[in-house]
Amino acid sequence: MRKQNPAGQPGTVLIVGLGLIGGSYAKRLSAEGFRVLAITQREEDLALARQRGWIAQGSTEEDPVLIGEAELVVFAVYPHVLVDWVSRNQQAFRPGAVLTDVCGVKEYVVRSVQSFLREDVEFLGSHPMAGKEVSGIRYSDDAIFRGANFIITPTEKNTGGAVQILKDLGNTLGFAHISVLSPEEHDKMVGYVSHLTHAIAVSLMNANDNQHLQEYTGDSFRDLTRIARINDALWTELFFLNKKNLTQEIDEFVAVLEDLKDKVAKEDTEGLRELFIRSTQRRALFDRPAE
Amino acid sequence: MRKQNPAGQPGTVLIVGLGLIGGSYAKRLSAEGFRVLAITQREEDLALARQRGWIAQGSTEEDPVLIGEAELVVFAVYPHVLVDWVSRNQQAFRPGAVLTDVCGVKEYVVRSVQSFLREDVEFLGSHPMAGKEVSGIRYSDDAIFRGANFIITPTEKNTGGAVQILKDLGNTLGFAHISVLSPEEHDKMVGYVSHLTHAIAVSLMNANDNQHLQEYTGDSFRDLTRIARINDALWTELFFLNKKNLTQEIDEFVAVLEDLKDKVAKEDTEGLRELFIRSTQRRALFDRPAE
Repeated sequence: MRKQNPAGQPGTVLIVGLGLIGGSYAKRLSAEGFRVLAITQREEDLALARQRGWIAQGSTEEDPVLIGEAELVVFAVYPHVLVDWVSRNQQAFRPGAVLTDVCGVKEYVVRSVQSFLREDVEFLGSHPMAGKEVSGIRYSDDAIFRGANFIITPTEKNTGGAVQILKDLGNTLGFAHISVLSPEEHDKMVGYVSHLTHAIAVSLMNANDNQHLQEYTGDSFRDLTRIARINDALWTELFFLNKKNLTQEIDEFVAVLEDLKDKVAKEDTEGLRELFIRSTQRRALFDRPAE
Repeated sequence: MRKQNPAGQPGTVLIVGLGLIGGSYAKRLSAEGFRVLAITQREEDLALARQRGWIAQGSTEEDPVLIGEAELVVFAVYPHVLVDWVSRNQQAFRPGAVLTDVCGVKEYVVRSVQSFLREDVEFLGSHPMAGKEVSGIRYSDDAIFRGANFIITPTEKNTGGAVQILKDLGNTLGFAHISVLSPEEHDKMVGYVSHLTHAIAVSLMNANDNQHLQEYTGDSFRDLTRIARINDALWTELFFLNKKNLTQEIDEFVAVLEDLKDKVAKEDTEGLRELFIRSTQRRALFDRPAE
């Protein structure tokens, strides 16, 4: 995706869904010189994006003219909404257009869309691993991409050209690390690093109803449960769409935690220290330079 | 604890153990006008504290003259070390001296020391709920106390006067919230907010040995596992000394996580959203104004 197309005009990106992530994409891409269009449900979100200069044009309707102008379309909506939307509007895409998304599950989204999509249009999944515990375009901020990871999930149906367009997109958005995984490898990986961690944070908050705990907590508890403030509709969908991986990761995690508990119960000093030393070594790999 | 004693001289505080926390106490208390003494194992830690002006005097020996000068003694050492140290040196304390600590478990420390301590000296436990994932006086920084919680754990053997001295200490150190709990209530509370959270972070790191995960992780995984970098000797001691509470908290947490897993497996939308909504509401109580 070049900032200018061969005719010398700015490259045109359509963003479907101006929420936290869609708005952050619009902010950054417009600042980088792209022509950004938007389709979203609420007029007030369009108005805010226009007022901030993040979009050139937008609509609350699924306008075929607007859709047909885009060389790149980014779906920043829930997985089921995306699949239905593409199915309903696929005749409107520009021939040669590249479509991508921002969803946290990839097998369902990518395999579904690729099963019915027109041959002259390409859907290539991607996942910006960044976010906030709040939603809505008013919280949009492209600083959330800085230092973060961007995953591209091609299948046998995708082209090297589209992969390059999405690598350029990840770089333009400011991501620090761009990786390529299959949709299935992606879902296995997020089942551990994202879905399991959210399941843990939510369970930790549900395990105790002491209203006074905030008077006693240290930073460790705050950090561990930050993500327990959760968009319940979105995460219910993500958990169901990654059910197999998530339930398996929960089983493996519980087995390790039960083993730690046994070592505590038996006062197995060597065994417990080994767990601590291994976790310390592994965690050191994840430090960012600023930490 | 006044900055000046009745004779108009600066109040004298002895810190036993110049590590991360002991050093941070020395830094703040010396800046606030107290006369700070230190006893610690390594000459280089004393040298650093002297060089920075954090202590007036110090020794690597358990010097009875130094011990006898202190109106307040703070033990910033491991629980077992503390109990042995007090037992060995109790004849050296100044009559009327108040002793406290910084340990993360209270029943063992407080009940042990109070069982054998001289009648004219008072041990009152306290727990500064602040820290870093590194240890040693070179990382000492009294900014870690800002906004944090300070818990005081009196028993029937303690006096209101000593509780007031420790409240003043907590305020002087810059803690935002000072609470009073029995040692047993404290240990139950930290079994959940601190020991269980560390057990979870350590288990999460031990549950997966994929060396490439750092290329894919989002901030949620980093936050959740920050505390998996852990001082293995200290935390083995803390877990064993709070064994009953910790194993019970692990059981309760695992039951909630298994329930969440069942709801995912059955695609119980209402049940799962209820867990998410409750965790979101409860977590909101823990936000600091800056979050």
